[in-house]
Amino acid sequence: MKKGKTFIVSGPSGVGKSTVLKELLEQRQDVYFSVSATTRGARDGEIDGVHYHFLDVDTFRDWIARDQFLEYAEYVGNFYGTPKRFVDEAMDQGRDVILDIEVQGAIQVTSKRPDTVRIFIAPPSWRELERRLTQRGTDSPDKVQKRLLRAKVEFQTAHTYDYFVINDTVENAVAELNAIMIAEHCKPKERMEIISGS
Amino acid sequence: MKKGKTFIVSGPSGVGKSTVLKELLEQRQDVYFSVSATTRGARDGEIDGVHYHFLDVDTFRDWIARDQFLEYAEYVGNFYGTPKRFVDEAMDQGRDVILDIEVQGAIQVTSKRPDTVRIFIAPPSWRELERRLTQRGTDSPDKVQKRLLRAKVEFQTAHTYDYFVINDTVENAVAELNAIMIAEHCKPKERMEIISGS
Repeated sequence: MKKGKTFIVSGPSGVGKSTVLKELLEQRQDVYFSVSATTRGARDGEIDGVHYHFLDVDTFRDWIARDQFLEYAEYVGNFYGTPKRFVDEAMDQGRDVILDIEVQGAIQVTSKRPDTVRIFIAPPSWRELERRLTQRGTDSPDKVQKRLLRAKVEFQTAHTYDYFVINDTVENAVAELNAIMIAEHCKPKERMEIISGS
Repeated sequence: MKKGKTFIVSGPSGVGKSTVLKELLEQRQDVYFSVSATTRGARDGEIDGVHYHFLDVDTFRDWIARDQFLEYAEYVGNFYGTPKRFVDEAMDQGRDVILDIEVQGAIQVTSKRPDTVRIFIAPPSWRELERRLTQRGTDSPDKVQKRLLRAKVEFQTAHTYDYFVINDTVENAVAELNAIMIAEHCKPKERMEIISGS
């Protein structure tokens, strides 16, 4: 039986990653989108197991001790992490998995799972990213420049990623993501096993 | 500007490679399907530059001497080869190129052009390949067994290929080929240049 693969999707603030992933997941209902665990409290409307797996600090620490995370980090006093269990269950069912995590988390995951495929969503140009950040109107011009600089640093850090998807239009970006997921299942290792055993 | 990439497509006799490529080329009119050069005479209905580039032996030898082939071979007294020129012209125009060549020719091409992507079209199972070879009715049972053995040897030789497309249905195989061609353009080298320069 076909086994699922795990795909890390990273990308700078403002690049439109969430919109692209939302559209991809609508087209590919077979894909499991990994839900993070966190120790922060649930906000209004957030559902346990859907938006996050809400854990108390002791449980989170216990999971860390038992190597139950593909990656985790502490951020403003709370823990966030990717539980192994749900990822592994989905893959065993033959489902591909998407992890929406940033570059530092990706390094942790690939050190544990070198066969994870890493995809970076990039803007068509830096000027266009600046335009998008400005247009969404949530940040001051100064904050926009900081985000832009951070995006450029992330991009340089991401040079070891396997693929770069350019989000010029959502349609193109989704098509490229989809193509990468299909193509990755055509790699020799997986296919040689299927064919040799036939 | 986006530069084209070259894709080698190989596969054993009876796997349905021609049907798959015909369908792909109908969907992707931007793709250049490489036309081989040969010293054998044109058969009825064969058009120079469409079915083959028909060359006399002196010209073919001259092209070999001037390193004008990506690969060539002699087969039952005639030369066959892939001229560099048309491949390079298409790539410079941003068109992807498909070379329909067998495993030995692929070795020659990739030694000259290591960035060529190699795709092997495989049957869903050996039993299915045997069924297809038998069903087309052109070969004796003995010949079918010989082709099957040859296919298995080719498959083993092809373990260094980049991708294996399984031709279970033409539709699936074309979708996988298409996905591979799209995904290959998302590789870091090409994309980093585009984005860094923006």
